[in-house]
Amino acid sequence: MKKAVVLLSGGVDSSTTLYWAKSRGYKCFCLAFDYGQRHKKEIKSARAIARKTECLLYVIKINLPRKGSSLFRNSEKIPSPKSLAEIKSRIPSTYVPSRNTIFLSVALNYAETIGARAIFIGANAVDFSGYPDCRPQYYRAFRKLAKLGTKCGIEGKPINIFTPLVNMNKAQIIRLAARLRVPLDLTWSCYAGDKKPCNKCDACLLRKKGFTEAGIRI
Amino acid sequence: MKKAVVLLSGGVDSSTTLYWAKSRGYKCFCLAFDYGQRHKKEIKSARAIARKTECLLYVIKINLPRKGSSLFRNSEKIPSPKSLAEIKSRIPSTYVPSRNTIFLSVALNYAETIGARAIFIGANAVDFSGYPDCRPQYYRAFRKLAKLGTKCGIEGKPINIFTPLVNMNKAQIIRLAARLRVPLDLTWSCYAGDKKPCNKCDACLLRKKGFTEAGIRI
Repeated sequence: MKKAVVLLSGGVDSSTTLYWAKSRGYKCFCLAFDYGQRHKKEIKSARAIARKTECLLYVIKINLPRKGSSLFRNSEKIPSPKSLAEIKSRIPSTYVPSRNTIFLSVALNYAETIGARAIFIGANAVDFSGYPDCRPQYYRAFRKLAKLGTKCGIEGKPINIFTPLVNMNKAQIIRLAARLRVPLDLTWSCYAGDKKPCNKCDACLLRKKGFTEAGIRI
Repeated sequence: MKKAVVLLSGGVDSSTTLYWAKSRGYKCFCLAFDYGQRHKKEIKSARAIARKTECLLYVIKINLPRKGSSLFRNSEKIPSPKSLAEIKSRIPSTYVPSRNTIFLSVALNYAETIGARAIFIGANAVDFSGYPDCRPQYYRAFRKLAKLGTKCGIEGKPINIFTPLVNMNKAQIIRLAARLRVPLDLTWSCYAGDKKPCNKCDACLLRKKGFTEAGIRI
């Protein structure tokens, strides 16, 4: 059975990506990250989703310098955009420099270690917060890097990076999730990480938009 | 004063790179990694070198899956090549998948966080163990990734990756180190990480070659 590493944050996109990879016949090994994010509770969702799919989940702990992003605990307030147009107009303070590069570089290590030739990431460049490391051209560059920077890559068996959701809007993702029977009630998106979703942050607003447009309730 | 992030492992190459960056007028912020390597004592050398140069050193701890390399503690024996020709003939079991990609991705986070526009790494593709992520073409790919994957990059102020030693042989590096007055006695190269260098591993043999050819003793 072909192996894949799946970056699983516990949100809708990464969970749908995991189910997508499984539907394509991959044996999936999931990675989550504890990097100082204030919504650390997303890792609980990742654990629940991994358990549901009977996939192994490895949690990477890394002590990033906790500055430069409102997504870190004890940092400035996370933004509450007034509209979806505002979300699309700027890179918000929740941007964590180089986050997906860090996640993918560790995924690359894990993939080569276990002999996987595929990495799946639920990046999306349609209904997103403008993060540069979510765009297709970034992933093209990373694929090249993965080929040049690994033993298996220079031996002609490179690890590919798959972004099945990159060009979908949130409603399309939610519909796909429903079709794949993703347990959406187990997922967590909110940046605030309190008991209940704040319904104000980018992640909450984009999630709400997706469910509304898809006509799906959980 | 222009800022730079310097990857400082505590060996000859990274220490020389730090002194080189300082000689070019950079205010340097050093990064070392505790990733499960058996020669964890290299971090002590990194601390000593950082102290000597009065630079801040931040140590990143990351729980990589400790498989797939003889460089991890409690893993298979590290190889003792019979000759320098043997070193140049293969990628040894000390190869850690995607290591420099992990290091650089965290350096990229740190650099953007503190407003640095330069990252220095002491990679070398002449007297080296054939690691794919030490070669110039890999760094060209990473520069492109750094531009596409960061806020400052897409805003036209990308972070550059400098590899001042990449085309030097070990003797040239040692001579440069001597000229820059790098405290070579504080550096640590041996992979084994015992009390004294093993004088058998790739790192020891390459170091010895450099000192011999440069005609320098410490």
